[in-house]
Amino acid sequence: MRPLDLNCDMGESYGRFTLGQDAAVMKFITSANIACGFHAGDFSTMRRTVDLAIEHDVAIGAHPSFPDLQGFGRRAMELTPEEVYELVVYQIGALWGFVRAAGGTLRHVKPHGMLHNMAAVQQPLAAAIVRAVLAVDPTLHLYALSGSEMTRAAEKQGLAVAHEVFADRTYQQNGTLTPRTQPNAMLHDPALAVQQVLHMVNDGKVRATDGEMVSIRADTVCIHGDGEHALEFVSHLHTALIQRGVQLIAPGRPK
Amino acid sequence: MRPLDLNCDMGESYGRFTLGQDAAVMKFITSANIACGFHAGDFSTMRRTVDLAIEHDVAIGAHPSFPDLQGFGRRAMELTPEEVYELVVYQIGALWGFVRAAGGTLRHVKPHGMLHNMAAVQQPLAAAIVRAVLAVDPTLHLYALSGSEMTRAAEKQGLAVAHEVFADRTYQQNGTLTPRTQPNAMLHDPALAVQQVLHMVNDGKVRATDGEMVSIRADTVCIHGDGEHALEFVSHLHTALIQRGVQLIAPGRPK
Amino acid sequence: MRPLDLNCDMGESYGRFTLGQDAAVMKFITSANIACGFHAGDFSTMRRTVDLAIEHDVAIGAHPSFPDLQGFGRRAMELTPEEVYELVVYQIGALWGFVRAAGGTLRHVKPHGMLHNMAAVQQPLAAAIVRAVLAVDPTLHLYALSGSEMTRAAEKQGLAVAHEVFADRTYQQNGTLTPRTQPNAMLHDPALAVQQVLHMVNDGKVRATDGEMVSIRADTVCIHGDGEHALEFVSHLHTALIQRGVQLIAPGRPK
Amino acid sequence: MRPLDLNCDMGESYGRFTLGQDAAVMKFITSANIACGFHAGDFSTMRRTVDLAIEHDVAIGAHPSFPDLQGFGRRAMELTPEEVYELVVYQIGALWGFVRAAGGTLRHVKPHGMLHNMAAVQQPLAAAIVRAVLAVDPTLHLYALSGSEMTRAAEKQGLAVAHEVFADRTYQQNGTLTPRTQPNAMLHDPALAVQQVLHMVNDGKVRATDGEMVSIRADTVCIHGDGEHALEFVSHLHTALIQRGVQLIAPGRPK
Repeated sequence: MRPLDLNCDMGESYGRFTLGQDAAVMKFITSANIACGFHAGDFSTMRRTVDLAIEHDVAIGAHPSFPDLQGFGRRAMELTPEEVYELVVYQIGALWGFVRAAGGTLRHVKPHGMLHNMAAVQQPLAAAIVRAVLAVDPTLHLYALSGSEMTRAAEKQGLAVAHEVFADRTYQQNGTLTPRTQPNAMLHDPALAVQQVLHMVNDGKVRATDGEMVSIRADTVCIHGDGEHALEFVSHLHTALIQRGVQLIAPGRPK
Repeated sequence: MRPLDLNCDMGESYGRFTLGQDAAVMKFITSANIACGFHAGDFSTMRRTVDLAIEHDVAIGAHPSFPDLQGFGRRAMELTPEEVYELVVYQIGALWGFVRAAGGTLRHVKPHGMLHNMAAVQQPLAAAIVRAVLAVDPTLHLYALSGSEMTRAAEKQGLAVAHEVFADRTYQQNGTLTPRTQPNAMLHDPALAVQQVLHMVNDGKVRATDGEMVSIRADTVCIHGDGEHALEFVSHLHTALIQRGVQLIAPGRPK
Repeated sequence: MRPLDLNCDMGESYGRFTLGQDAAVMKFITSANIACGFHAGDFSTMRRTVDLAIEHDVAIGAHPSFPDLQGFGRRAMELTPEEVYELVVYQIGALWGFVRAAGGTLRHVKPHGMLHNMAAVQQPLAAAIVRAVLAVDPTLHLYALSGSEMTRAAEKQGLAVAHEVFADRTYQQNGTLTPRTQPNAMLHDPALAVQQVLHMVNDGKVRATDGEMVSIRADTVCIHGDGEHALEFVSHLHTALIQRGVQLIAPGRPK
Repeated sequence: MRPLDLNCDMGESYGRFTLGQDAAVMKFITSANIACGFHAGDFSTMRRTVDLAIEHDVAIGAHPSFPDLQGFGRRAMELTPEEVYELVVYQIGALWGFVRAAGGTLRHVKPHGMLHNMAAVQQPLAAAIVRAVLAVDPTLHLYALSGSEMTRAAEKQGLAVAHEVFADRTYQQNGTLTPRTQPNAMLHDPALAVQQVLHMVNDGKVRATDGEMVSIRADTVCIHGDGEHALEFVSHLHTALIQRGVQLIAPGRPK
């Protein structure tokens, strides 16, 4: 059975503004994507979050974003591939500083929000992100939407990549996520979510909304740390996967 | 004869806003202190400036600042030593990303503006900066005002430090700079400036404004890259020092 | 019996970051000090908060701050009186835009956080704030710490001023607040807080920590909208004051 | 003969970063569009620029932008019409504060950069901008690209609008500007530029790049204040138009 990673965005507070429940969620995940100051995460939050991840032996990754604190990195911005390369280099570096200062190891990069969404479908942006990661540290893993332009660019350029899937989102026949605008976009039943993940990791398949089976590669599951039921959900998923014999471990770490 | 470094703040443009004459000045200096986005220097400027420094084989250093773009890092801000530690780690890391991506080597850190001024006299801030540099990379050099709390903190904590002096500023009997508010704060004659530097580097002494000789250690001279006569001045200083047999080289580089 | 105002900082969310419980607190106060984007409060939050205040017929005031989102306007910054004048003009204007667009009336200005603290004791900053308010709209009221440099500057320059007191903070013999660093800085018993306010508004006096009676002018009480017991406290204070016959109304509004 | 306005973007410096040659250009224009802090123009620059415009009796307008200092408001950002409404209200208000404090009158609004470009072709953004201007002050004029969605929205909603044309850009057969990517986008000969403006203002026509005459309404000419020949160009245009008997005056001002 293939091992599986559970990744969650972390360190998304900013100054006096608190977001998420990092200390509680950190217990159940294997990878933390830490905000680098562009959509969230000031330098004090970054340091604290790196320390927390090290304490829980959770793999640390940079979570670079468009420069948009007000929009939380969720607004489309028209940046050139060169600018995207540069903002990824900057943010990986900034987080690396804290990881190095704390004696830890930077292991991965997962683009945030709209940067992730746009690079998933725009090849030049995807290629720029991959080039940036390779340039700073070619041993890092890229976490990116399974079957996207990003996973393709990483594979083409020789960057280790973890295909990301969702436990609580449904998939369409072409292997893409059902848009949130559609009524059946979410799986609300935790049992179904667990089942979907097990199916993905064990069989490499997911049942699309039209009932067909679709091939999918699942290396890491995206966990949402915010929201009323987030903690409950990740705790449930974590326990259920371990009970079913799934090894939870970050990509590239010794098993 | 002791070698000498000429350092200059670089990469202080921001987006559409251009500052300095980096390409011209880079030819005459041995160390570039590159702005890291807090007082100046967006991610595109940083990348371009790192590339320029590598091209000229100039030693690259981070130039961290208080977070104050509007005030260009020249306004006092009351930050805790912990926050100062964190903002230095962040900015060194961010610049390191570009240096690493370009295949270069990060060699030093020089605090900017009011952060430099405050840490020169406040021991807790000085100690925080030194701890930050050591935590990220203990092989870096700190460039700091000669005889300040920063050079003392570096020497105490075992961080390599380059004592910084000024060619065109006068010194007081206690070895500190004459405040700019006083009429005799500046040396306007380039010949006198050259003479002062030669005296410092060869004899370890400077003539204070009251005529007395004061001991001073001069490892690096601070060059201003902005202003009408900046280029002329650095070009003159560079030529005169070489003619007098001074070896111009960044600290820690093979001679 | 003199009327009394209850003022509370409002609109201190920022983008995705939520702070406070504005909708609930708004029912119990008579004046809302609305953040203007410098320490909190983006343009969407400002508009929403202005609408909310108008809906509850709560007096609207600008709550200008140092430009410091990360530090929530609580860090000392060294700005000139001219810069303080300018940032107050800017922020009053920005809020005025929303008030005007919503058909409301801007009624007061209350400086935020460290700007308030510094101007309370530094006459040049206090005078600059008063000049700014007068220049933009001389019919506005300034809300400022009772007996501070700000209330003095307002009275001297002819600006209407509401002296601000605290229900849950203790006072020293000289009429100033007991610093929070001291153990007896807070009144934790709501009944004592109500009693202190009644004493202030009815008799113009407060019992200092050493037992002596001190004269104090109380036009408006500062309410904290954030924190676990904030809502409970303001609800209790509101009810108790009305029961004791205190008229709760913002300064300058028709009674 | 119809009167004509010459408008220019002003106050686009930021802190230590200087841009433009406002003091020199101000002599030749009739309307100043003043940056409001989002793409340029901090609060000190805004105050100084308002004072300068009043001194030269130049009509003052707000020049609102997307929130993007690094990109100078030239990068596309995906904001909702509601957000566009809000950022326009905020920026008009902020500038109004300085105008009011200086005893002047705010007269117009001209959207900046990419906000202008996008609202010129996207009706919902255009309508939001017009609503914002009307809500803050229905006596203001909107300056917008002649024949754009913005001029249409203003005319529909009853907002006074000045149609903006260019002296040094060529026009296509459908009345739109020739894209800068095409070789014949610019008129480099100042004499031709003057002739084009005279033709527009006197006859309401412009000769398109294919030689055909196209109808165009010209109320205000956009002047570029930055660049090597900007000052020379505006000075020439100003003199030539006056010599030909064109009355240079801002819209809505008494002639």
